[in-house]
Amino acid sequence: MYDGLKGFREFYPDEMSARRAVTDTIEDRIRQYGFREIGTPALERTQLYTDKSGEEIVEELYAFEDKGGRTVALTPELTPTVARMVVARGGALQKPIKWFSTRPFWRYEQVQQGRFREFYQTNIDIFGTSRPESDAEILAVAAGAMVDLGLSESDFEFRISHRDILGGLLESLDSDVETQAAIRAVDKREKVDPEAYYELLVDAGLTRSEAESFDAVLQTDDLDELIEFAETDRVESAVENLRSVLDAAADFGVREYCTISLETARGLDYYTGVVFECFDTAGEVSRSVFGGGRYDDLIEGYGGEPTPAVGVGIGHETLSLLCQRAGVWPDEATRTDYYVLSVGDTREVSLDIAGELRELGHVVETDLSGRGFGDQLSYADGIDAETVVIVGEQDLADEAVTIKDMKSGEQTQVPLSMFPPEDGRPTYEDFE
Amino acid sequence: MYDGLKGFREFYPDEMSARRAVTDTIEDRIRQYGFREIGTPALERTQLYTDKSGEEIVEELYAFEDKGGRTVALTPELTPTVARMVVARGGALQKPIKWFSTRPFWRYEQVQQGRFREFYQTNIDIFGTSRPESDAEILAVAAGAMVDLGLSESDFEFRISHRDILGGLLESLDSDVETQAAIRAVDKREKVDPEAYYELLVDAGLTRSEAESFDAVLQTDDLDELIEFAETDRVESAVENLRSVLDAAADFGVREYCTISLETARGLDYYTGVVFECFDTAGEVSRSVFGGGRYDDLIEGYGGEPTPAVGVGIGHETLSLLCQRAGVWPDEATRTDYYVLSVGDTREVSLDIAGELRELGHVVETDLSGRGFGDQLSYADGIDAETVVIVGEQDLADEAVTIKDMKSGEQTQVPLSMFPPEDGRPTYEDFE
Repeated sequence: MYDGLKGFREFYPDEMSARRAVTDTIEDRIRQYGFREIGTPALERTQLYTDKSGEEIVEELYAFEDKGGRTVALTPELTPTVARMVVARGGALQKPIKWFSTRPFWRYEQVQQGRFREFYQTNIDIFGTSRPESDAEILAVAAGAMVDLGLSESDFEFRISHRDILGGLLESLDSDVETQAAIRAVDKREKVDPEAYYELLVDAGLTRSEAESFDAVLQTDDLDELIEFAETDRVESAVENLRSVLDAAADFGVREYCTISLETARGLDYYTGVVFECFDTAGEVSRSVFGGGRYDDLIEGYGGEPTPAVGVGIGHETLSLLCQRAGVWPDEATRTDYYVLSVGDTREVSLDIAGELRELGHVVETDLSGRGFGDQLSYADGIDAETVVIVGEQDLADEAVTIKDMKSGEQTQVPLSMFPPEDGRPTYEDFE
Repeated sequence: MYDGLKGFREFYPDEMSARRAVTDTIEDRIRQYGFREIGTPALERTQLYTDKSGEEIVEELYAFEDKGGRTVALTPELTPTVARMVVARGGALQKPIKWFSTRPFWRYEQVQQGRFREFYQTNIDIFGTSRPESDAEILAVAAGAMVDLGLSESDFEFRISHRDILGGLLESLDSDVETQAAIRAVDKREKVDPEAYYELLVDAGLTRSEAESFDAVLQTDDLDELIEFAETDRVESAVENLRSVLDAAADFGVREYCTISLETARGLDYYTGVVFECFDTAGEVSRSVFGGGRYDDLIEGYGGEPTPAVGVGIGHETLSLLCQRAGVWPDEATRTDYYVLSVGDTREVSLDIAGELRELGHVVETDLSGRGFGDQLSYADGIDAETVVIVGEQDLADEAVTIKDMKSGEQTQVPLSMFPPEDGRPTYEDFE
């Protein structure tokens, strides 16, 4: 017997139907905001990632040399590909550009709960505007999708921070601080013990007392305290930007899902403004469920015109853990509208009826195995058919079919002239 | 500027919307027959392919060693993965198993019209029954999807053959024939000149006169001639099976799309019964558009219980060429139901209206760029908005909004209490 690869999964129909329902729910919400779907390749030149993130990223990639001698990698994330697409079409694209897609990505990582080597993400991005309404729309579409999945304020929260507040606070200190290292330390705050956290800040250039006062001001609920702490234009305008985004989020109707949480820093270096992470409020999904933010410098970094950008990547693996914890994961089940059961020499009429029901948009199965009455009924039960249409020779002699409700087991004969009707999805109740 | 890889494509929204429409149309039809979606990995052990097809297949694969030392390959087709899944769950799966999926596959091939290194297929398979109704259902679902795409009998045909007719005819000859080599020669009949074709048959062990009489009998319209030619039970029962499948196809309502064409052999060695290929009747798409057939030995070959199987893999690249040639390729265009245009201090009300319209299921965009009236109207035009809802300060003072039809340019004021209504998708016409 052949095995699949570690960290790669196959989804049988029951599980796949739940995953498909979740993806459809998310994408329906996204489409309603006017985001347009794009399609992207599974393979890119490895350079697309190393130029941005350094050679060490290769360790996490499925990278190899193709038969033409190109150094290529399975795409570990969408952003570099999308950046390449924006750069390629540049000015020809109407702004703002609003794109989304759902697809797998690949990283050679330790497999653990909610983390696989092949994992699925829905990415949503807006390019070409730095206005707070665009940050807020990303929050709104993500929160809206969560609500559509059946989640509520008591299940999840978006913890919101701002790269320029963190950077500006650090810049305002007397010491000469390595900003990226200090921000990475902040990102680790929840994952390491306090001493280790302060050590990371000290390693980044802060004195111990700066580290403590910096950490204290991060915990404030009053954004004015941040301005007073730093006394710089940079922090003042970052605070103003964060407030504008939250005001816009209120107008979008999603302010209630957002909590200011300055220690939310996002691991990736390319963020430039508002950043946020979605957390399970019950704390059972211990890692961030997903996150996003503003990255205004990336397109220029890939050789394009300066193009502000904001986006979010919804990871389906952690999201499914959250949905399961909250009890809103869709039923993993096979359902069927009709099974048309043919007994005796009635195949032609049975397939006609099945075809007519399909034309009405219903899911209909018929016998493909040459089975008798009882075995067909068992199969219909196995595919959870709601209604069985029995087409027997005696029925046809009576110019009728028998409609059977699979839940109650009750059945009734219906004239062929009345079935199937011109519309609707008639069940036993309509004929009893 | 970064380039994508040769043979790999990115799809911008206009093209993607057409591709998505085609995929949705195909999958809707498939679901109506009760096929269930599965999800499968992009990477498999290379052995899954070499055990079936020999070491030479590696030349066509994106194969490499992963960081754990495993020899792996990007999946070039679905069948081995699906076979592995059937073997793994074996008896636990209710029969017949009816599965489908749409996803990319990868082969390191020469790039040409309709052929890329990353290409998309919708695969549809039935496992666990050898009855002719199952072959016919595969023909029916494929033909039904084509018809749903807007194609007709004058656009495409399914050329149908049978491996056991070809094999049985060859077996009945006096010479000792290498069957697979001869069938591969038949598969090349249309692609090479007659002399080269006969040479291939002679290479496979036929005498020249056998090759000519064999080729002549392949052209017959009368299946009884095949039985007379071979005088073997094998050919007789293969002809009977082909007739049963065509009879069942008639009951499924798709006989008209099927032509008997014994020289249609399909390249792949694993077929065992009925095989078919879809062709462009106008001949503009010169290669087969897609194909399928019965492969009863494959599951056992992968270590499972003997499990008959039949399926088809619809290639989206050649299918899109056919749709374009026939003039039924969906419009490559962005469309939007509403643009809610906010002027002055009206953001909150504008976003409320946009939100209500989205709750009704519509696609709605709002200003994300801080634009004035004229620039917002241009943007609304650019996204092909059907209706613009103008929310100005004067409108709001009048407790009203202005509804503008973008095609005619006409507009009218509507009381806020009437918009948006509780259902439907009101346009200018509803208020004029």
